[in-house]
Amino acid sequence: MTPYDFRQSVRDGRFRGPTAGQCGDYAQANLAILPSAHAGDFLRFCQANPKPCPLLGVGEPGQWHVPVLGREVDIRNDVPAYNVYRDGRLAEETDSLADLWQNDFVVFAIGCSFSFEQMLAQEGIPLRHAEEGRNVPMYRTRIANRRAGVFGGQLVVSMRPMRGAEAIRAVQITSRFPAIHGAPVHIGDPAELGIEDLDKPEFGDPVTIKPGELPVFWACGVTPQTAIMAAKLPLAIAHKPGHMLVTDIKNASLAVF
Amino acid sequence: MTPYDFRQSVRDGRFRGPTAGQCGDYAQANLAILPSAHAGDFLRFCQANPKPCPLLGVGEPGQWHVPVLGREVDIRNDVPAYNVYRDGRLAEETDSLADLWQNDFVVFAIGCSFSFEQMLAQEGIPLRHAEEGRNVPMYRTRIANRRAGVFGGQLVVSMRPMRGAEAIRAVQITSRFPAIHGAPVHIGDPAELGIEDLDKPEFGDPVTIKPGELPVFWACGVTPQTAIMAAKLPLAIAHKPGHMLVTDIKNASLAVF
Repeated sequence: MTPYDFRQSVRDGRFRGPTAGQCGDYAQANLAILPSAHAGDFLRFCQANPKPCPLLGVGEPGQWHVPVLGREVDIRNDVPAYNVYRDGRLAEETDSLADLWQNDFVVFAIGCSFSFEQMLAQEGIPLRHAEEGRNVPMYRTRIANRRAGVFGGQLVVSMRPMRGAEAIRAVQITSRFPAIHGAPVHIGDPAELGIEDLDKPEFGDPVTIKPGELPVFWACGVTPQTAIMAAKLPLAIAHKPGHMLVTDIKNASLAVF
Repeated sequence: MTPYDFRQSVRDGRFRGPTAGQCGDYAQANLAILPSAHAGDFLRFCQANPKPCPLLGVGEPGQWHVPVLGREVDIRNDVPAYNVYRDGRLAEETDSLADLWQNDFVVFAIGCSFSFEQMLAQEGIPLRHAEEGRNVPMYRTRIANRRAGVFGGQLVVSMRPMRGAEAIRAVQITSRFPAIHGAPVHIGDPAELGIEDLDKPEFGDPVTIKPGELPVFWACGVTPQTAIMAAKLPLAIAHKPGHMLVTDIKNASLAVF
């Protein structure tokens, strides 16, 4: 199925689930939608924090068709589920923004680790959370994001355990893709990031770390979502975690070398 | 001083010491010189084991001027000190091969970690052995080299301790330079390589590993030298460790991207 066809199936209600594994050669995107009053700050936040917030595309104010993301994309209806935040709290979940859309909304599409996970798997690097049928474990760190206006907070990281030689290969593979979080931010001792217990992730699920494996940490697309919540905007919209926008951007086209 | 001028100072006896830090922008080379009867095997050995044995240049039989290595190079006299091995044992040390040279000698110049250490230092990554005024610690592993004819043995690795984020950057930097050993072969648990005690290197000196640091292991140019000794050839020549050939090859020119 092409990303175009997949988006049609979402738009007409045939697909409503998590998007992991769909259209595997194409980039999926984290979504943030903000009124234009806050869009300038958020754009600077993303620019200043490119590892957790690599921008795949930004819409013009009011634009729900963002051509760079795909043919005939309709951001209001092409994501299987949306979270609506009011004053920093999850207010509702919906499968269409048709009734919520405002002419000043600005769309931000942010790269997603689903893309690099496919490339790691293709090279035989284990994805423990996938093996164990869980969500990837994510942790809030003590690393402060660079602040821009109302957006700040701490870096959130995802963790994948692997052996040393696999970690080296994973650094090489993901370094080629800065638009999908790029290289890891840390290998080894979780305490260096202020993480106290790997068995207690703030988001996602804990996974097994086998003897001889190192925890490898990547900047995570949940970071901008926590920054948006902490900013307590009157209104902000994001995808429901795991329910991403499937774009027409080939993962391979995002390699910088 | 240019590499050409430096080699002249070696050739006329003004310089006889270790070459670390000399002509820092230029590649230094490990040297192996073998009678042509064994040169085919050794060339296949290097080709099959490119991480420890990346070839910068190979001479024609009898050729002591190897143009790819530098202007007017004289392999017989341009290295500050040579080790002469007979039947696999160090038989003598000399500062000239003029009297030993044979018309069937084949020169092998193999990339050296001095090149990538300079690049690591330029990016602020610590080189503990340099800080502590020691030789880098090197360990024989249980990883078997790919055998070619009489040459086999185990991989020898060098170790540099650093923090997780530094290890990620070090992988990125050294991945660009396969001709000088390339990316590390392992990060973390020494037992995975069959190394029992990091404080007891087979070659070089032990160094301090600080809390929060990981040992990072690179394939080492001592590997071919141990393979040559183990092969117990009637005659083989190498540089004296630390006393390298300074080439005209710019380190930067060896980057593959």
